[in-house]
Amino acid sequence: MDRGRLEAFSDGVFAVAITLLALDLAVAGPGQGPLLRQLGEHWPAFAAYLVSFATIGVIWINHQSLIRNVAAVDRTLLFANLLLLLFVVLIPFATSTTSEYLKANDEDARVATALYGAVFEGMGLSFAAMFAWTLGEGRTIRPVPPGARRAAWLRFSPGLGAYLLAIAVAFVSAQAAFAIIGLAAVYYAFERTPRA
Amino acid sequence: MDRGRLEAFSDGVFAVAITLLALDLAVAGPGQGPLLRQLGEHWPAFAAYLVSFATIGVIWINHQSLIRNVAAVDRTLLFANLLLLLFVVLIPFATSTTSEYLKANDEDARVATALYGAVFEGMGLSFAAMFAWTLGEGRTIRPVPPGARRAAWLRFSPGLGAYLLAIAVAFVSAQAAFAIIGLAAVYYAFERTPRA
Amino acid sequence: MDRGRLEAFSDGVFAVAITLLALDLAVAGPGQGPLLRQLGEHWPAFAAYLVSFATIGVIWINHQSLIRNVAAVDRTLLFANLLLLLFVVLIPFATSTTSEYLKANDEDARVATALYGAVFEGMGLSFAAMFAWTLGEGRTIRPVPPGARRAAWLRFSPGLGAYLLAIAVAFVSAQAAFAIIGLAAVYYAFERTPRA
Amino acid sequence: MDRGRLEAFSDGVFAVAITLLALDLAVAGPGQGPLLRQLGEHWPAFAAYLVSFATIGVIWINHQSLIRNVAAVDRTLLFANLLLLLFVVLIPFATSTTSEYLKANDEDARVATALYGAVFEGMGLSFAAMFAWTLGEGRTIRPVPPGARRAAWLRFSPGLGAYLLAIAVAFVSAQAAFAIIGLAAVYYAFERTPRA
Repeated sequence: MDRGRLEAFSDGVFAVAITLLALDLAVAGPGQGPLLRQLGEHWPAFAAYLVSFATIGVIWINHQSLIRNVAAVDRTLLFANLLLLLFVVLIPFATSTTSEYLKANDEDARVATALYGAVFEGMGLSFAAMFAWTLGEGRTIRPVPPGARRAAWLRFSPGLGAYLLAIAVAFVSAQAAFAIIGLAAVYYAFERTPRA
Repeated sequence: MDRGRLEAFSDGVFAVAITLLALDLAVAGPGQGPLLRQLGEHWPAFAAYLVSFATIGVIWINHQSLIRNVAAVDRTLLFANLLLLLFVVLIPFATSTTSEYLKANDEDARVATALYGAVFEGMGLSFAAMFAWTLGEGRTIRPVPPGARRAAWLRFSPGLGAYLLAIAVAFVSAQAAFAIIGLAAVYYAFERTPRA
Repeated sequence: MDRGRLEAFSDGVFAVAITLLALDLAVAGPGQGPLLRQLGEHWPAFAAYLVSFATIGVIWINHQSLIRNVAAVDRTLLFANLLLLLFVVLIPFATSTTSEYLKANDEDARVATALYGAVFEGMGLSFAAMFAWTLGEGRTIRPVPPGARRAAWLRFSPGLGAYLLAIAVAFVSAQAAFAIIGLAAVYYAFERTPRA
Repeated sequence: MDRGRLEAFSDGVFAVAITLLALDLAVAGPGQGPLLRQLGEHWPAFAAYLVSFATIGVIWINHQSLIRNVAAVDRTLLFANLLLLLFVVLIPFATSTTSEYLKANDEDARVATALYGAVFEGMGLSFAAMFAWTLGEGRTIRPVPPGARRAAWLRFSPGLGAYLLAIAVAFVSAQAAFAIIGLAAVYYAFERTPRA
């Protein structure tokens, strides 16, 4: 199996998904009130753009550190990677839904934000599956020592916990849940998979 | 001719097509009833997203195992590959049409699902053409032994048959036809082109 | 300068443009009459999809034969390539406009088809500029002998002429002009840039 | 870290963003007046398409000259690059907003054009951050001599100044600000990062 194409296809999906995020920013257009007010009322779309952009950007960075240490790609890794991409492709949809409903901070906003957190949780779990795969015998170019594995899991799990927490908090306050998801993106930016 | 660009262009088309699938998931937005009910009534869009994502993912995996064994790319292979991509590009359209009509399970749903099956049948036949091309003298890096060829055709044909069956069944029940197409994606996930 | 990135960026633009073509195929949806009739009345969209897909596919094939013989990429070639991509990016727009207006075969259909032809003429002229660039001293890996150059221009020019003819014919019949553009795609499929 | 994937992901984002620009060109369609008049009244969309296409094209060219001289990619460069892409992804949105409002040349047009200039200023500053990073010890394959650095900054800064000027001018005349942004694209086309 071919690492180059796994990377090329994944990079393509990451690039298209991250670029489609901006489609939600479009304002209603002339005749719908002053542009400045339209932009201001549109703040959830800009906030959700920043959070989703940062999350995709960070997962892309972690994806490349993980894949570059892989010794040989097999079907299991390809399917785990497809599962990751299945959630990445859902991000523009979840972002768009959250940004439409977040402002009201009502029942629907809670459903939208829980959905948003669930998509990120699914992405995180798929990434964890890929990471677990790399821990198998002979799967990485340089072996991952047990100490580094434990450290990596310790660093990795809080992010998964944060998304679960966000889903739970969403049933109390959509905007608080949204803030937790934003903080998880900041957290992951400093997280690193082991480079052995 | 250049294998790298055949792969890069195909990966780009696969990546864009698979990411555009999620555009159909968008709900009508605030003021159109509770979000949870909107999402629930939208189930055909989610089901069609899963089936189309899986089918594109699997054809991408099979595409890379096939191309990596190709000794030299010629114009015939490029055109067979373009034919494959012509059907891949139609998948978001066929998915969208099916997901809009599937729920009613009426005459229009039958037409939509038959169209969906026909696009996958076209994709499968184009892939079969590429596979047949690889069986020519000196076209693969490692030759494909006759036993492996026969085995590969035996494994490959049922998928093509399943799409034909789905088109036929569509004229009785759109949802049964849709289920057959979903099962074909699962089937192909375990199918492998010969690695000789 | 870097041939790999010229290819990667161009492949990305070709791939996105060719995949966006299918967005025009979307039907109006349930409640707008029988789906089969909607699809039938939509024939210009399907015809324009086929013609534009074939044209982008063929220009991509010719682009890769041209670029793979280039010895070193310079700023002039990068800008000629950007000009080519400027027209490639316009193709989904021109295709969409043509497919909306073609059926009436009236004044507006003539404008739309002339625009469609003009985008292809612009793409062809940009490609000709890139081809002319490759004829300079030391620009190709293997030199192009004068006989092959003349033969290449002889094969290349009719396509450019066909698009000009289509623009002229558009002012008499949009559908005849559209047919000429379709034939040019078939013509170019058999055209080859010299492989020296 | 991996230069190839930094390039592939960036090329993907540049390619998708540049291709999405043309989505704004779509006319209202049949029944909305003569097509020729619709196209004519649509001139801001065509002008904004040209300016944004040229700006993305030029930043892509400069991106590749910068990255190809990088000795080793680190997390700092990856994040500076993500910041650049964050602004690149905003270009289709800013282009679309500007082209909708530019014609009236009123208060809203000023806001839209200032936003357009601000997105380009953000892109320019992110690129400047990447350029500053390359000036660190041992970060480039061939060292950048101090004279070349000074020359590069002298050539680079006017573009950043032009976008600032455009934002200021926008509060007087949106169309004058738009013209300045167009001239900056022409300016950058002749600007080169040092090739050491």
